[in-house]
Parts: sequence; C-alpha cells; structure tokens
Amino acid sequence: MNLILIQPEEVQAGQVRLTDRRADHLRKILKVREDDTVRVGVVGGLMGSGTICGIAQNEVVLQVKLDTPPPAKLDVDLILALPRPIMLKRVLAQVAAMGVRHLFLVNANRVEKSFFDASPVKDGGFLTFLENGLEQAVDTILPTISVHPRFKPFIEDVIPARVAACKLIAHPDGGVNLAERIDAATESGTTLLAIGPEGGWIDYEVVKFQDAGFQPFSLGPRILRVDTAVPAIIAQIDFALQRKASRLR
Amino acid sequence: MNLILIQPEEVQAGQVRLTDRRADHLRKILKVREDDTVRVGVVGGLMGSGTICGIAQNEVVLQVKLDTPPPAKLDVDLILALPRPIMLKRVLAQVAAMGVRHLFLVNANRVEKSFFDASPVKDGGFLTFLENGLEQAVDTILPTISVHPRFKPFIEDVIPARVAACKLIAHPDGGVNLAERIDAATESGTTLLAIGPEGGWIDYEVVKFQDAGFQPFSLGPRILRVDTAVPAIIAQIDFALQRKASRLR
Repeated sequence: MNLILIQPEEVQAGQVRLTDRRADHLRKILKVREDDTVRVGVVGGLMGSGTICGIAQNEVVLQVKLDTPPPAKLDVDLILALPRPIMLKRVLAQVAAMGVRHLFLVNANRVEKSFFDASPVKDGGFLTFLENGLEQAVDTILPTISVHPRFKPFIEDVIPARVAACKLIAHPDGGVNLAERIDAATESGTTLLAIGPEGGWIDYEVVKFQDAGFQPFSLGPRILRVDTAVPAIIAQIDFALQRKASRLR
Repeated sequence: MNLILIQPEEVQAGQVRLTDRRADHLRKILKVREDDTVRVGVVGGLMGSGTICGIAQNEVVLQVKLDTPPPAKLDVDLILALPRPIMLKRVLAQVAAMGVRHLFLVNANRVEKSFFDASPVKDGGFLTFLENGLEQAVDTILPTISVHPRFKPFIEDVIPARVAACKLIAHPDGGVNLAERIDAATESGTTLLAIGPEGGWIDYEVVKFQDAGFQPFSLGPRILRVDTAVPAIIAQIDFALQRKASRLR
C-alpha cells in the first residue's frame, strides 16, 4: 500500500478517522507515530499528505493536505475476454495500477460460461481489487468497467459507438508487430486493445473484430498467460505512444 | 498447458509414457483420443508433436516427433531483489515464459531476511514454477538461476564478471526513460536489468549499481507490483531491442 486511499465523505474538517485495514496497515506495517506523514489520496480526486495526529488501539486519525493531481491515465481502453476468477482479480489490480481508462469484460467462444456467474463478476465486487491497484500505483482515478455476456451485440453495437484512434487485437497470427500498427495510426487519441481468452480468439471473433476496424498484431512465438500478457502489451503500447508523442513534438 | 514438457530420458524408442499430471491434463482437460496430436517439447531440446497411441485409466502413451527448435531466448538477464515467496513463484513462471536467460535473485536492504529461508529459495524448488512457464509459453529452454544472499559481493564480484551491452536499473528517480537508455547503448548483446524490492532500492544500492555501470531509468509515476513490473519492463526492453535491430538492418 503506497497510498492510503480515502473516500471523499471520510474527510471532515480536514481530518480522516480510519478504523479498518488502512488503520491496521499504518499501525502494524508502516508503524507510524504521531507527526509522521504518509501519502494519501481521495478516490476520484486529489492526492497529498496525511499527518498522523492521533493513534489509538483501533484507529488512526490523519490531518490531510490535498494538493497534487493524480498521474495521467493511459489513453487505453482494454477489451478482455473474461478470465477465470482468480486471474480476473489479479488483472483488475494490474489494470487499475497501469492506468487503463476503461475495461470491457467480454464473452468469447473459449470463455467458460461459469465465469460470468462467479464472484467478482456476479456480485459486481470489482472495487476492492481496483482499489488495491490504485493503492499500489499511487493513483486515485478508478478505471470504469462494463460486462458483456454476449459477444455479438458487443462487437456490433457497443464498439462502433466508441471513438478510438487505434484499434488493436492481439492474435498469434497477427503477423505485423505492435510498433508498426501504432506508428501507422494517423490520429492521436484512445487506443482500443483486445486481448483474448486462454486458447485465443476463434476465427469468427477475429473476423468480427477486423470488420469493426481492429488490426491484428502478434506478440511473437510465446503464449503468455493473461496476468503476464496484460502488463506486457499495455507497457509496449505505452512505450510506443510515448515515442510517437516525442517524435511529433 | 500449451506444451507437454518431457524429460530427455522419458523418450524411449520414439515413445513417451506419461502417468502424472501431464496424463491427467491430456485425459481430463484436453480430453484427447487415440490419434490426436498435441504439442510436445523435450526440456533443453527440440519441440514437435506427440500422437496419442494409447490411453488407459492412469496413463497416456505418445509417439513423439521432434523437429522444431524452441523460440529464441530474449537477450536479457534479470537481477531481481528477492520478492516474497508467493510473488516469487509467480515471477519465476513469468520469467521462464518471457524467455529471460538468467535470473539473479539478490538481497537488498528492503528484502525481508526470512524470504531467503522460505520455499522455494531454501529447497531450490524453482523447477516446477519455471516448467509451468515453459508449458505456458511453448518453450523448452529453462532460464538459469543464481541466489545471492549478500548484496556487496554480488555487485562487487559477480556483476563485473558478466559481459553486457547495456546495464539498466529501474529506479523511480531515474529520470531518463528506457527508450533513450537502450538507443544510447552502442553495442549489441545482453541487457542486464535490475528491478528492486517493494519500497525500492536504497541510495547505497543505487550508487553501487551505478558504480558497476548501470544506468537508471524511470517507468513513470506509477509504482507497479513486481508481478506487473517484471513483464512490463521486459516487454518494453524486448520492444526497444526489436526496433533497434530493425533500424540497424
């Protein structure tokens, strides 16, 4: 936890009174004392410092000063074939930590139907995992999430309504690599990135993505698990976008 | 499991008899039948196909044909401050899957001493996790691993003996980004990459790395957990090396 994340309504007269796992973390892991300062951030708002002004058995009181904007989001929306629950939890934290703006969790032929009935998808319990990612990365802006249990309406109706400068689908037979795809995009703006399930997209899905304007790219011969592929591909897009921006400047 | 990994001594007269989790995987997950073929690979050797020629309650017999070299390794050696055991297991699989050549697991001021006494470090039980990575990525060449419980002899004696074209240390205050560092390296060859512990390297360690020729680079304002930082940074190095190679061609 590199940031103590607080809800807007918890700040009262410049102070926050914590009694949950955040208080435990401050007392037992960071072993704070009075007058120590820690990094704090308000969900959806500014970051800054919190000065410890009271510690008791079960609570920690902080005087907060909020003066720093959170880091810029990555201009990437991620379309992810719904992974198995244990992997989803991990990927939610990764996606929040890396600054993805929006996550589409979609069905695909090789997604097990039971995944849609599993926690956290069924109970909408994404928040804990996303907040863990923000606490790790030092950010306050949650990614937004939408769940799409049917592929066809997603690709035919939802996607055409999104504005994107570059639409990419990771696919082993994609041929061209990511750098060429990103350099070829003439507009600047959001990158829409689609990453498939274990076993990959089926041909029908790839064709539908291509009909919707997505360009396939290959990551090379290695097949990465979703919790490795997601940070790897997002990091490469970030890298390519930064290079492109610095050349255009 | 995208590849059935077999040991060299298991191949006899072109056949392999499996009775362990690999047989279970073939029977219960892949639900193979006679004459089906699956991808196989011999640890340290060639890959190819295995044709099912016998299935019984507890065993599967494959006729193997080995004719394909494994994918090229990434020309990257990773120096990693020893992470907590649960994270280490995950990172071992990631490192193997991404094709890293050598992994140095090193001590640092912010590494808890108990991590060196924990499994898999104490019992040398790295193999299972590395093999999981190869089975996922479709590769047969294991990364090599060395464990360095003392930082000073590692940085003063071990590192100077390594030949590397580019030595990089991930550090929040690194300023310059990865692309500039890699483009500036005039030789081609191995990249030595150092990634710190939770909480980062201390100043003494950064200075020692710099004395040993390492250049710091920054990943930006976000602090990533080791299982996100490792694939993200390795993917960016892979990307930068590929671009550099294509420009030099």
